[in-house]
Amino acid sequence: MRRSRSRLDLRAIVDLRPVAMVVGIVLLVLALAMLPSMLADLIAGHADWQVFLLSASCTAFIGVSLILMTTGVSRTPELTVRQGFLLTTLTWVTTTAFAALPFAFSDLGLGAAGAFFEAMSGITTTGSTVIVGLEAAPPGILLWRAMLQWLGGIGIIVMGIAILPMLSIGGMQLFRTESTDSSEKILPRAAQIATNIALIYLLLSLLCASIYWLFGMSWFDAAAHAMTTIATGGYSTYDASIGHFASPAIEWTAITFMIVGGIPFVLYVQILRGQKLQLFHDVQVRWFLGILAGGTALLAFWLVQRGLMFGHDGLRHAAFATVSVVTGTGYAASDFNAWGTFPVGVIFFLMCIGGCSGSTTGGMKVFRFAVLYQIARVQVLRLLQPSGVFRPIYNGQPVADQTAISILGFVFVFALSFAVLSILLSFLGLDYLTAMSGALSALANVGPGLGDLIGPAKNFAALPDTAKWLLSAGMLLGRLELFTVLVLFAPAFWRA
Amino acid sequence: MRRSRSRLDLRAIVDLRPVAMVVGIVLLVLALAMLPSMLADLIAGHADWQVFLLSASCTAFIGVSLILMTTGVSRTPELTVRQGFLLTTLTWVTTTAFAALPFAFSDLGLGAAGAFFEAMSGITTTGSTVIVGLEAAPPGILLWRAMLQWLGGIGIIVMGIAILPMLSIGGMQLFRTESTDSSEKILPRAAQIATNIALIYLLLSLLCASIYWLFGMSWFDAAAHAMTTIATGGYSTYDASIGHFASPAIEWTAITFMIVGGIPFVLYVQILRGQKLQLFHDVQVRWFLGILAGGTALLAFWLVQRGLMFGHDGLRHAAFATVSVVTGTGYAASDFNAWGTFPVGVIFFLMCIGGCSGSTTGGMKVFRFAVLYQIARVQVLRLLQPSGVFRPIYNGQPVADQTAISILGFVFVFALSFAVLSILLSFLGLDYLTAMSGALSALANVGPGLGDLIGPAKNFAALPDTAKWLLSAGMLLGRLELFTVLVLFAPAFWRA
Repeated sequence: MRRSRSRLDLRAIVDLRPVAMVVGIVLLVLALAMLPSMLADLIAGHADWQVFLLSASCTAFIGVSLILMTTGVSRTPELTVRQGFLLTTLTWVTTTAFAALPFAFSDLGLGAAGAFFEAMSGITTTGSTVIVGLEAAPPGILLWRAMLQWLGGIGIIVMGIAILPMLSIGGMQLFRTESTDSSEKILPRAAQIATNIALIYLLLSLLCASIYWLFGMSWFDAAAHAMTTIATGGYSTYDASIGHFASPAIEWTAITFMIVGGIPFVLYVQILRGQKLQLFHDVQVRWFLGILAGGTALLAFWLVQRGLMFGHDGLRHAAFATVSVVTGTGYAASDFNAWGTFPVGVIFFLMCIGGCSGSTTGGMKVFRFAVLYQIARVQVLRLLQPSGVFRPIYNGQPVADQTAISILGFVFVFALSFAVLSILLSFLGLDYLTAMSGALSALANVGPGLGDLIGPAKNFAALPDTAKWLLSAGMLLGRLELFTVLVLFAPAFWRA
Repeated sequence: MRRSRSRLDLRAIVDLRPVAMVVGIVLLVLALAMLPSMLADLIAGHADWQVFLLSASCTAFIGVSLILMTTGVSRTPELTVRQGFLLTTLTWVTTTAFAALPFAFSDLGLGAAGAFFEAMSGITTTGSTVIVGLEAAPPGILLWRAMLQWLGGIGIIVMGIAILPMLSIGGMQLFRTESTDSSEKILPRAAQIATNIALIYLLLSLLCASIYWLFGMSWFDAAAHAMTTIATGGYSTYDASIGHFASPAIEWTAITFMIVGGIPFVLYVQILRGQKLQLFHDVQVRWFLGILAGGTALLAFWLVQRGLMFGHDGLRHAAFATVSVVTGTGYAASDFNAWGTFPVGVIFFLMCIGGCSGSTTGGMKVFRFAVLYQIARVQVLRLLQPSGVFRPIYNGQPVADQTAISILGFVFVFALSFAVLSILLSFLGLDYLTAMSGALSALANVGPGLGDLIGPAKNFAALPDTAKWLLSAGMLLGRLELFTVLVLFAPAFWRA
């Protein structure tokens, strides 16, 4: 860790040792997570098990090395804000690089860009894929994709509770106030929250898998889909996604558990503690369910009115598409890209919404829209009565000006990132709809895009490598709420 | 003006008489403005002069009636904030309705929706047209279109100086502070500003027309194009727009005067008073010119790199497209829709930027982007040093939190309006690119959209009537900075 004084002295700015330690621990966990995939290939008698052994060894070696290098560091270090940002971004990028090893070593012909894209799409629970012919892929790879999303899902929940509120990103301080409010004391310690949530996450996954299995999936498909449903990830074991099963029961199950995955997991802890009503009193949950109902109604109306589908079919497909897109899961039950102009327009804007903060979903998050609505309302009232005193309210509490600016600033930076990414993609020759929907889908961690190239019936394999790198960066940016990554590019970050 | 007490009592909420008086005066001016077009048709011996006589008579009759109805009202009434909103929106809508009469009465076959669309597009200086075959249209109609944009241009400048800052819309209070700042006292009275600016506007128009004429336009074309250039309107007397003349000199003239039209006219007053350096010290002007240079560089790079155009041709077409789109003029020198994926992507986002506040341009306005950049910068600094005190700066002054929220709120409502309008247009069956670019082009008062239907080589004639009404509403919303119109829909507006 020594650097000569004449070069940029990192240690004077930010002590990297606690960061390296955490990255080491996460890599060790990642290596262990590769073992079930190895086992799956061994059981199936597929030679690909060696790929996982090799990947796990590399990952574990680097992980252990990092941990050993930092033996002098406290096991529970007090992180500074800068360490927090660097830790979060570095952990995510490093994990992705190592998670990409099985894709790179395996016989899929993805190349470096494709393998990294697939891993990033997995870990960020985006669900865009570059693998064509999933039916022919070795079971280890299929399980690994599901595993990545499942781990990425619990990772983002814990991060949303423990780290992002501390960093005050884009209005996340709203949740800091909430959980540190002594009058509420939902749960005293973050570690206990994380443990409880992980338990609930596991139980919900098992429940989802059982129901999938009951409705006719093989145990392997049930497990893989349950992991990517509850994580609102969207990787499937078939090219046709959930549509492969052609089963309304399975589709309704997926709809239900995607919604479950989009609700703040802290609320489930509260329910288990007997506060059942909390769930429907939460502003996020109300907005989330309202948006889902509204989107479903719009799409169902169009499908039925245009005679494309009837009755229950129309409702189910509309609900599936809405829930899949809003939660950023990205499963496809049918190709909504072929439904006509209106669904394409509606789905484009639904993409950016996302679910609740503290859930596995991506996007801008509904709590921001709830506050934005309040801000717009207050703006109108202020225009009419310039001398009046009005305040936006969130969950019964007034929103501070600084928090409002954080949230609005987040929306602006989201829009700006979307514009820049779209323009870069169009520079690579991608058409307007592909570039715009691809950029938004990546930033909001949705999965499929729109149009003939990357729509729900297709995948991202045909894109140029540069587009895959750009979209991977977009997924990371979106998953880490933009600012976590962007601050690292601020000159001020690297000044002592 | 009497209403029974049992119905909604408007007079208790807002006294409509000053509003009616102003509308009456504006209509009278509008009627007078129809006379040159009548003359043009008379000189050309075209029977259409009767259309203008009829339209002018109707308009003058209603205008005079309104003025006579309000004889008891003070000639210089003190307006309340509510009256200000109602006055602005009502004046704009009423004027548009009467300005549409010549289009409706003439033999163009536009229908009510088409005529209203054409008038709204003129008055808001948008420049989208539904008339096919401008070459065959009577001279009166061509002059009327130019006249509408010219009047709309000066109308919005005066409104931007006199009314919008008073209403504190979307951060416009920044300019209220500036012009009421006793240390500066640019010009003491609004009436004097308006007179000076109108004079400069007239002189610049004459200068522009002379140069067009020198470079080979007929005196009629020169006058018509000068009026729509300085107003950054974009109506031409030819279907092929400026491209009709195939003259680089004319194109550079148009580029220059579109830029001139995009700069705050107050600055020209300052220059005439000897403060020459003010122009380039103004943050808006710097950002505006920087954005134009950046957009031109991007497009020129693509055109040359792809071998589509070379050297001066590439630079000129890139500059023309950038300036035409950013200022919201909407002239076409060549069909940028056919330049490939990258220009389409870049131009889409350039559309929403707009020029300087206090100019004739539409869009979100560069001063908002300048403040947004500052806000994003401060956000990053605050994330790194939560205890530090940072403030966004605009033109050397700190921006108050409330002003920052106003500006950010404006951006959010702009994005929301864009989403709603796009979705409504896609419901009418318009494809993705047409719906998105049409909605943005209307809201930002640009003119042409993108795609094969409404791109620069085409026009809006083929759209369904409902789309024309929706786009007209979008143009009005954008031109009046959204909130001026939207507050009228707030229940609070209509409560006493």
